[in-house]
Amino acid sequence: MFEIKHRDGMARIAEFTTPHGVVDTPNIMPVVNPNVKLITPRELQKKFKSEVLITNSYVIYQSQHLKDRALERGLHSLLDFTGAIMTDSGTFQAHVYGELDIEPTEILDFQVNIGSDISTILDMFTEPTDNSSVVKKKVDTTVARAVDAMDRYGDGPSHIALPIQGGIYPDLREECAERLSRLKGSFYPIGGVVPLLENYRFFDLVNVIIASKRGLGPTGPVHLFGAGHPMLYPLAVLLGCDLFDSSSYAKYARRGDMMYPDGTRNIDDIEHLACLCPTCSDLTVEELKDLDTDEKTRKIAEHNLWVSYNEIEKVKQAVREESLWELVERRARAHPYLLKSLKALTSNWKTMEIYQPKGRKKALFYTGKSTLERPMVKRLKVWIRDSYSPTVCGPTIIFNGREDKKPYNRYLTREIKALSPEYSVNLLMQTPLGPIPLEMDEVYPVAQSIFPEDLNDEASLQKYLDRCDITDVIYWDGLETLESLDKVTGISYELMKVYSVCEYQFCRGAGEVLTNGELELVKNRRGRIKNVFLNGKHILSMRHYDGLFSLKEEGAILLHKHLQAPLLRVQVTEDSASYNAEGKNVFNGFVNYAWEHIRPGDEVLIVDPNDSLVAIARAFNSPYEMENYHVGLAARTRTGFSSSQS
Amino acid sequence: MFEIKHRDGMARIAEFTTPHGVVDTPNIMPVVNPNVKLITPRELQKKFKSEVLITNSYVIYQSQHLKDRALERGLHSLLDFTGAIMTDSGTFQAHVYGELDIEPTEILDFQVNIGSDISTILDMFTEPTDNSSVVKKKVDTTVARAVDAMDRYGDGPSHIALPIQGGIYPDLREECAERLSRLKGSFYPIGGVVPLLENYRFFDLVNVIIASKRGLGPTGPVHLFGAGHPMLYPLAVLLGCDLFDSSSYAKYARRGDMMYPDGTRNIDDIEHLACLCPTCSDLTVEELKDLDTDEKTRKIAEHNLWVSYNEIEKVKQAVREESLWELVERRARAHPYLLKSLKALTSNWKTMEIYQPKGRKKALFYTGKSTLERPMVKRLKVWIRDSYSPTVCGPTIIFNGREDKKPYNRYLTREIKALSPEYSVNLLMQTPLGPIPLEMDEVYPVAQSIFPEDLNDEASLQKYLDRCDITDVIYWDGLETLESLDKVTGISYELMKVYSVCEYQFCRGAGEVLTNGELELVKNRRGRIKNVFLNGKHILSMRHYDGLFSLKEEGAILLHKHLQAPLLRVQVTEDSASYNAEGKNVFNGFVNYAWEHIRPGDEVLIVDPNDSLVAIARAFNSPYEMENYHVGLAARTRTGFSSSQS
Repeated sequence: MFEIKHRDGMARIAEFTTPHGVVDTPNIMPVVNPNVKLITPRELQKKFKSEVLITNSYVIYQSQHLKDRALERGLHSLLDFTGAIMTDSGTFQAHVYGELDIEPTEILDFQVNIGSDISTILDMFTEPTDNSSVVKKKVDTTVARAVDAMDRYGDGPSHIALPIQGGIYPDLREECAERLSRLKGSFYPIGGVVPLLENYRFFDLVNVIIASKRGLGPTGPVHLFGAGHPMLYPLAVLLGCDLFDSSSYAKYARRGDMMYPDGTRNIDDIEHLACLCPTCSDLTVEELKDLDTDEKTRKIAEHNLWVSYNEIEKVKQAVREESLWELVERRARAHPYLLKSLKALTSNWKTMEIYQPKGRKKALFYTGKSTLERPMVKRLKVWIRDSYSPTVCGPTIIFNGREDKKPYNRYLTREIKALSPEYSVNLLMQTPLGPIPLEMDEVYPVAQSIFPEDLNDEASLQKYLDRCDITDVIYWDGLETLESLDKVTGISYELMKVYSVCEYQFCRGAGEVLTNGELELVKNRRGRIKNVFLNGKHILSMRHYDGLFSLKEEGAILLHKHLQAPLLRVQVTEDSASYNAEGKNVFNGFVNYAWEHIRPGDEVLIVDPNDSLVAIARAFNSPYEMENYHVGLAARTRTGFSSSQS
Repeated sequence: MFEIKHRDGMARIAEFTTPHGVVDTPNIMPVVNPNVKLITPRELQKKFKSEVLITNSYVIYQSQHLKDRALERGLHSLLDFTGAIMTDSGTFQAHVYGELDIEPTEILDFQVNIGSDISTILDMFTEPTDNSSVVKKKVDTTVARAVDAMDRYGDGPSHIALPIQGGIYPDLREECAERLSRLKGSFYPIGGVVPLLENYRFFDLVNVIIASKRGLGPTGPVHLFGAGHPMLYPLAVLLGCDLFDSSSYAKYARRGDMMYPDGTRNIDDIEHLACLCPTCSDLTVEELKDLDTDEKTRKIAEHNLWVSYNEIEKVKQAVREESLWELVERRARAHPYLLKSLKALTSNWKTMEIYQPKGRKKALFYTGKSTLERPMVKRLKVWIRDSYSPTVCGPTIIFNGREDKKPYNRYLTREIKALSPEYSVNLLMQTPLGPIPLEMDEVYPVAQSIFPEDLNDEASLQKYLDRCDITDVIYWDGLETLESLDKVTGISYELMKVYSVCEYQFCRGAGEVLTNGELELVKNRRGRIKNVFLNGKHILSMRHYDGLFSLKEEGAILLHKHLQAPLLRVQVTEDSASYNAEGKNVFNGFVNYAWEHIRPGDEVLIVDPNDSLVAIARAFNSPYEMENYHVGLAARTRTGFSSSQS
């Protein structure tokens, strides 16, 4: 029902199947008021290519006329829309007007009966002002209603939307999400966030979303209920939200507010539309201002929809090029409270890190301090600070890693390069990413990054030196210090490189396994490592774009032999194993377990239930996703062992 | 010939008059190659509403056929374009291919003869790699040719473009600009910047532009020669550039590169066009990819033009709402080297400060550290650090100015507010803007700003305390510290407010003049000062949006009486004086002198040549602009004294 096609961390481009067609996510569900159709559903479908919309079943239920027509001809006929329709239950009306005079089962049954594609339970709206015991009770009621709803409609015909509540308490959000996820629902809105949106409480919003996602684990579409401003889409998608509903396009239009990706402007304050959308292209700003109110509202609503859909397209393009994080950081400058929300990403970096690949094709662009707090960067920094072992015990030479001299090793003076294989010294670069051992300097994003200037991180260096108990330090600034090195014998820089990159990329111990023997390196013309041979066998190739290794058959066999399960493994079912051994991809639903430290993009060992190695693959999903999703790609097989060994 | 209509600091929206119509600036001049018309000039005019384009006279001159036709029928007929046409001289060809076989006068004469609206002298392209003596020689040659050109064509019929050269040496750029400005030209390109653009050397670019602008002083349009990427427009307009030429739209298109405000993407890397332009709206990405090369190039060129023109519209809207600085800071996140270029703004803040108003209607949005370095912010910080005088000599109480408690004075405990008029203490707020005396807390942007969090600036506080020799400091965190205050008698908080704001807004001494006597304050319901009366006369009103004063007649009379010329004055000609006394605006061309510390938006005293006060006005221009421009608004008169006193 929900198949992930592309991903960038927690963000995903997916296909969500409904009784009325496949919905591509991320996507917007424009809110259609059955009484007031500012833009008709038919226009939405035709002009804006809307695949899904949302309407309020409670409003229909309250009107005898609409109710009768809906029950008679069905919801799709009532609205004149052939795509997917989600219905809301009246929860938001309860939030605005107080308790409703309707039974939870009654309104749910109604939604299913009129043929809604996604029917929403009547959950309890948790307010930011609710104290935790009030929230807890509302969560309990919501979960109880969800249990009841899934008992009755868990097998269809409608998707049942099970909203996550929990106010502004991350632990209650997580708990609610966790309890709802046990029901194996196919659609999860995050509810009760409108008051946060209205008050620009984006910091709290991020904490709420991340806690909800953490509780949910891998699930089908996550819908951020009530988020209708395009300004928020990049951030929300980055956090793994897939669907947005928007009544804002219309509400804003009624007060003359035009949406832009960087905020909102009232038509009265606009002198230059500065918009290329079909609606704005047809009009001058003066003409738009001079329209009568209804027509002006309609035009502005159209503009708001164009801009919203286009922002979704920008987000999708960013996911495809794995640059969503950059887009989020740029967009965050639209409002100081969005900027503040980036801090909530930092404090939740461990939750997000699980979904981040170790490398990507696009260089890291520095946009501000928060760039250095991205999970992808933080992982490398923390690994060096806490886990990297200097391979030699000689003194440590610290270089200043200049932005215009990357990768650093190519710019070291010939003398020091010539010396390093012979002398046992640790070579460390001072960089904006903290201290980087010289042999790690081509690993993403050390070389693949652009910083505005030298932003060396002294504090991280000191922590590293303290942990490794390094006191014999030389700050390198000329050839004269070379004299002090010639007492110590050392090991080769290239050996260190293979060793340390393997330790970082695969796991502790992999460096030893893959360097233990006679190492031979094939380099390209520029002196970069291309292929690694151990005892005459080709074990690794280096990827040029992220400085990490592709695992070759002999390398995989070594790792499999020397590192015990579950390390580096994805264990698949017997059926899948024979299929994967032929070089075919690994799919979700056939994975028994996946090692918890696997990250998307990692090289993994595909094993059968007896831990026999059947294939080498590149992970597409995180381990939890592989274990829990039912459809879609889990890992892309590069080499199947039956075919290669036969 | 060049009339500024709206401004935001150095950025301006203006009308530039050419023999072929008025060109609205900022604007783009698409480059048209007379041999290869990817998009015809007629299409540019019809579809893209191009008001001006640029072509290369040297290319026309080199082709006997084109040359003959141009001489015979004129340039506009040759290109089939009825708007303004600028011609380049071949300087760029010399930069690419080496010395040309043509005399400077020959190619200039040719341009004028074929009816170019803006003819460019054959200047000497200064390379970033040229050393300063080479650059100096090239500058001398360029200036000599400019002198010659202006001798012959200074009175028309064509505008003569006098390019500023000087390589990457700000002093030589400034010198070149200053020498050229003496020729009273009507069109100034900044030349020799393409190599900087190609290598993303935006930091150097900013220094070059600012030095050139400083040397030029107030002039007609400034054209950034060769800047064709929309990513640069906000920054360049912020620095006072008015025109851009773009061959990039076509060049990029030929290699499949699509421009976006945040960078460039090759069509092969694009999965989602994410663009609303008329060209992209008509096509899917697959359809675009499948077009044959010529048609694809054409479509991409159109897209590039739409995006470029739209970015200009965004810039214009930002100028209108005085938010261009925010747009620049947001766009700077598109590339780390753009971000770095903001540092060049900081180091040149004094040049830019001259054009910045003290307040504006839009709140200050924090986008990163550079926000605190904007000239508008820096001016206030520096004034408090260096010029503010505590009005009482008691101890200083320092509060923590919380972001959610602004304006701070409304949130002080009732007790301290009640005490402050009676006790002689200095009340200081710790804020992200540095220390702010409590009575200044409603002055822009102290209250009118949004920060992501408390970012208190300890260093500035210490500098302030040191300068004022303040040692008796109490960090306020509760009522108990009140005990220590009751020995000192004090003056009223409101008196301090009027005094200090006047000192900051008008000049040193104004506070004394406008508070010396019996002060009476009229407040609004929320307790904010509305009107200030001194000895029964209405002297000042407070503007709600920036916390600064409007000067009333009696206030102006007092300032005029007690503060000697040139303080606060704009002296106009006899003719203008009688006109302004009737309440009519002050225009450039009629200003004898303007006090050098006047900033756009300031309240100014309009005086006649005998220093008689004739009107109160609000400056539109900086003093240098008032003195040097020939047309356009200099200051908006609010009160003329002849009418009011008759």
